[in-house]
Amino acid sequence: MSKPAPFGQRPLLPWPRSSSIWTPSMSHAPSATLDRRHQAVRQSLAAQALDALVVTSPSNILYLTNFTGSSAIVVVTADRLHFLTDFRYVTTIADTRDTAHECPGLELVTVEGSYDSALSELLASHRWPRVGFEAEQLTVSRHQWLTGSLAREASASVSLVPTSGIIEAVRVKKDPYELETLRNAALRLSLVTEALFHEVRAGRTEQDLANAIDQHIRLAGFSKTAFDTIVAAGPNGALPHARPSGRQLSEGDLVVLDFGGVYDSYCVDLTRTVSIGKASARAREVYEAVLEAHDNAIAAVRPGQSRFAIDAAARDTLAARGLGEAFGHGTGHGLGIEVHEDPKITRRRPDVSAEAEAVEPNMVFTIEPGAYLAGWGGVRIEDDVLVTDDGVEVLTKVTTDLIEI
Amino acid sequence: MSKPAPFGQRPLLPWPRSSSIWTPSMSHAPSATLDRRHQAVRQSLAAQALDALVVTSPSNILYLTNFTGSSAIVVVTADRLHFLTDFRYVTTIADTRDTAHECPGLELVTVEGSYDSALSELLASHRWPRVGFEAEQLTVSRHQWLTGSLAREASASVSLVPTSGIIEAVRVKKDPYELETLRNAALRLSLVTEALFHEVRAGRTEQDLANAIDQHIRLAGFSKTAFDTIVAAGPNGALPHARPSGRQLSEGDLVVLDFGGVYDSYCVDLTRTVSIGKASARAREVYEAVLEAHDNAIAAVRPGQSRFAIDAAARDTLAARGLGEAFGHGTGHGLGIEVHEDPKITRRRPDVSAEAEAVEPNMVFTIEPGAYLAGWGGVRIEDDVLVTDDGVEVLTKVTTDLIEI
Repeated sequence: MSKPAPFGQRPLLPWPRSSSIWTPSMSHAPSATLDRRHQAVRQSLAAQALDALVVTSPSNILYLTNFTGSSAIVVVTADRLHFLTDFRYVTTIADTRDTAHECPGLELVTVEGSYDSALSELLASHRWPRVGFEAEQLTVSRHQWLTGSLAREASASVSLVPTSGIIEAVRVKKDPYELETLRNAALRLSLVTEALFHEVRAGRTEQDLANAIDQHIRLAGFSKTAFDTIVAAGPNGALPHARPSGRQLSEGDLVVLDFGGVYDSYCVDLTRTVSIGKASARAREVYEAVLEAHDNAIAAVRPGQSRFAIDAAARDTLAARGLGEAFGHGTGHGLGIEVHEDPKITRRRPDVSAEAEAVEPNMVFTIEPGAYLAGWGGVRIEDDVLVTDDGVEVLTKVTTDLIEI
Repeated sequence: MSKPAPFGQRPLLPWPRSSSIWTPSMSHAPSATLDRRHQAVRQSLAAQALDALVVTSPSNILYLTNFTGSSAIVVVTADRLHFLTDFRYVTTIADTRDTAHECPGLELVTVEGSYDSALSELLASHRWPRVGFEAEQLTVSRHQWLTGSLAREASASVSLVPTSGIIEAVRVKKDPYELETLRNAALRLSLVTEALFHEVRAGRTEQDLANAIDQHIRLAGFSKTAFDTIVAAGPNGALPHARPSGRQLSEGDLVVLDFGGVYDSYCVDLTRTVSIGKASARAREVYEAVLEAHDNAIAAVRPGQSRFAIDAAARDTLAARGLGEAFGHGTGHGLGIEVHEDPKITRRRPDVSAEAEAVEPNMVFTIEPGAYLAGWGGVRIEDDVLVTDDGVEVLTKVTTDLIEI
């Protein structure tokens, strides 16, 4: 098939929403949005009879505060958000005061020595009786130290309670600010993809092409790539997580291009598989099977649908074409502050309740079936989708026709 | 001062040691090196009466096996290394059989469902009585699940024992393979730096220059940057961890350039501060103070020296120049598979024994004092050093003269 229209003929999106996009270490959710997120978390705390929640997950901290740095601990209570950070970031936080992105209810605590000592002091001084912590984040070692320290400092009046997924349960459904950001990011990544079709040519190495992809991602306004870019040509395509090698793209190769970007703290992710020269009958057959699986999975997305049923729509399609064994991974993963988050669109797991398996409006995830044949190569086609009130919206906008270059 | 000799006049280093450098998901320590690492870990296990050690830290897994993928668990016993991974990486591991980089004693376990279920089954089937785990890595949630699962499957005959830093204690002193890799990486980063002096010019934005730096890093044979590149011009330089902004470099700016690369799995890290146009008297004064702190710290490095004394050599120099308050972070950090590892060259901590504070031959770390003045800007000068048998070797080779561009 012919190449798409040249990149230069398309209108470019406006540059990031404000020049402050590069403000060091801060994202841009409006204060009212942050406040709604806090209220949702506080409802969970009340339901679990917790007086405070210690948040150590960097993604969850960003979600609650706009802070994108790596060093902070947050303690959420019924009316405050205590923010522990060190001198490197104090100015960053202070600079957001009285801006549209200020974190409401924030009490800044400057950490002088160790973060965990400062946390222990804060908990001991407030003596909140039941303090939740993120059991999927805190290590055994930090938990042991904190328990010991609190026993000494607070005379055992503070109990640490393991919690699971309190903030993640809020994050899984995107709010309007996040949807705007993800839509914008997905469009940018689509424009990157069209530009890339012109970068692919025989003789270029996988690594060289990967470098070019990364450069296009930066030029399109992303702050960085969302993961290590995959360019896997010919037999290398049989490894779903191949790393770009010195292999030159050659006539007859299928080339898997899988890349993503972080736009104002939100991740998008896209895969296309292109052919160098005319695709063989077998290549076309595998491509069409994967594309049908991709289309069937997207067609299955609607509110209330089981995420396992969405996976099955792709998996059963490939199995019917004799490619069931060739598809070893899940059909998709949630997108947001992290590039892999809930919901996971995977094979049915017996331990999940019917309620927990339904996808709901405002969830955003990838659909990315593939077929991998050892010694031959692979095909993967990936788009990012949003569950709407009555169906699905595909956020990435790139042709799924097999491009022959 | 004048610019250094053009980049093109210098001999380039040979390209990575073999075309296999880009082998998906594998690093290149020789099998005999891996074996020596395993023996060192086994000595610790014996000393702690442990029958097995569960390794979940990706960096530690890489150190023991050459595997650089993200998904694996390793269980080290007295005579085997059980390697749990999923279908995506099975071929990668199998392909190293009978190569120079094969992991000795490796028993491959293919994970079908969840990693922790597979780990629990392995532990239950072998019934090693005392199984160590990395308490600084395992989360409270995974630990709770594993404890419960083992209690059911193995009738409580397996006990999980928290351990701390067993493999890190071996990693802190680099072996000859690692020293060769780090020397090579540091030279490459030095060449990148000289090339960059020609990229810096008034009118360019911080972000644009950061993109150019990242591109030079890739072109020099690094697989990726070791961290998000810092370009901080003028007042932005007062934030030690500033992110590149849309600010244009302007006459009179000091510009902090801090960047690093990952070369065949090993990290190097370098900072230079340059002046756009002629530096002011104050800029020159601050620069000279930081440079003296940098030189004094390096001069203090020798076997047996306290890491706190190395920090003090920098800190006291800055304090004597009235810049004590302006230097808020530590003087350096270890380099290796991670860009921040032991030893930490920091202010004295009262809880560390005299023995634990001594640096020893074959340790590699940064020396990076800085001075940060809010509203004015900052200076940081960073090199990577190796403790030799009788002193210090500076691995990075770039002028520390103040470059005026």
